[in-house]
Amino acid sequence: MSDIVSTVDVILLTLKDGGLQAALLRRDHEPYAGVLALPGGYIHPEEDADAEAAAERVLRDKTGIVSPYLEQLATFSGRGRDPRGWSLSVCYYALVPPALIESAGRAEMSLHPADTVRGLPFDHTRIIAAAVERVRNKSSYSSLPVYLCGETFTLPQLQAVYETLLGEPLNKVSFRRKIAEFGILEPVKGALATGGAHRPAQIYRLKQRFRKNLSLTDRGLNTG
Amino acid sequence: MSDIVSTVDVILLTLKDGGLQAALLRRDHEPYAGVLALPGGYIHPEEDADAEAAAERVLRDKTGIVSPYLEQLATFSGRGRDPRGWSLSVCYYALVPPALIESAGRAEMSLHPADTVRGLPFDHTRIIAAAVERVRNKSSYSSLPVYLCGETFTLPQLQAVYETLLGEPLNKVSFRRKIAEFGILEPVKGALATGGAHRPAQIYRLKQRFRKNLSLTDRGLNTG
Repeated sequence: MSDIVSTVDVILLTLKDGGLQAALLRRDHEPYAGVLALPGGYIHPEEDADAEAAAERVLRDKTGIVSPYLEQLATFSGRGRDPRGWSLSVCYYALVPPALIESAGRAEMSLHPADTVRGLPFDHTRIIAAAVERVRNKSSYSSLPVYLCGETFTLPQLQAVYETLLGEPLNKVSFRRKIAEFGILEPVKGALATGGAHRPAQIYRLKQRFRKNLSLTDRGLNTG
Repeated sequence: MSDIVSTVDVILLTLKDGGLQAALLRRDHEPYAGVLALPGGYIHPEEDADAEAAAERVLRDKTGIVSPYLEQLATFSGRGRDPRGWSLSVCYYALVPPALIESAGRAEMSLHPADTVRGLPFDHTRIIAAAVERVRNKSSYSSLPVYLCGETFTLPQLQAVYETLLGEPLNKVSFRRKIAEFGILEPVKGALATGGAHRPAQIYRLKQRFRKNLSLTDRGLNTG
């Protein structure tokens, strides 16, 4: 029907070594065969119900990962971004704990600091920058960073994740109040994290019904 | 290259009769010929540099309007939304003063309350709802509503626009402080609005360099 190359790309982000890292794959076909790029692929109209389903399929097939949270970032399009011609990529981002990427065990996948990665093919450098900006903005007023934690975590661990994303220390009392307002966490009964010089901390997990949904606040987490 | 119907749609919003209204056009071809829908059209790869250029072209050709501010909302896609087959629409929203729509003088274009319009073809009802939600959210922390005003306006007029969008009264002193922080307005020298029981108010306009750019605050306008 049209001479438009229609694809999806997925920005898979995790927190590692104190910063956001993006998963890149070595491309197995032209253009840019052998070069690191975002996991992506053609939309298959006969197979995919919509673009989000295409992103889920591409992510699963190319990285082995099923992300609990996938959100549309934006569509990048135009004449110059792909040597195959006028192209359009509906981009989705996902946040996952680092253990999920390691357990996928794909040797061709590697993590790269999302703030400093450069020189990627297509407009993938710009797409990653847009995803990082979205995640930072959204972290200031939502429960999004919870998806970067493992299945269970303590509140000090969750606060450290928020502080890394927001780039500033948060007040413990107001942080805990906001998290309580979200109403997304439940304590794991009888589970305490011990270790170090601190007293044991309660272990939490995301309530079942929030596994795919964010909770939002109308005021920033970093504004008291 | 692909069997995907690739289009753009534009949600043109204005403030009239105390609420957000969306511009709809009577479709001049199948599917849904004669039915009210969002202004939209095919992407023309040979003509459009990217999807945003396609949205600008469609808006200009179908409504006669060149919007100073056009932002990507999201891409709506899938098998079921268009009888022509698997389709994808990159949607953009624009805010304009009501006078701009009236001066376009297109008889086939009409305004409809954005919160209550129903029964549109494709998924256009859902697309309008998503645009309204985006505009309301963004109004709480940005200069976006300025584009709903005419070329010149007083601060009481601008405050009334914000209050309509946010659905709540704002404190005059803190509202003016936030607007001053944006740094986007300049007084029109020697121009005062007179009339009514109030003392004359200074008339303002958007500074030239902000005609296409928003200014953002990291705290909501409605949070003191």
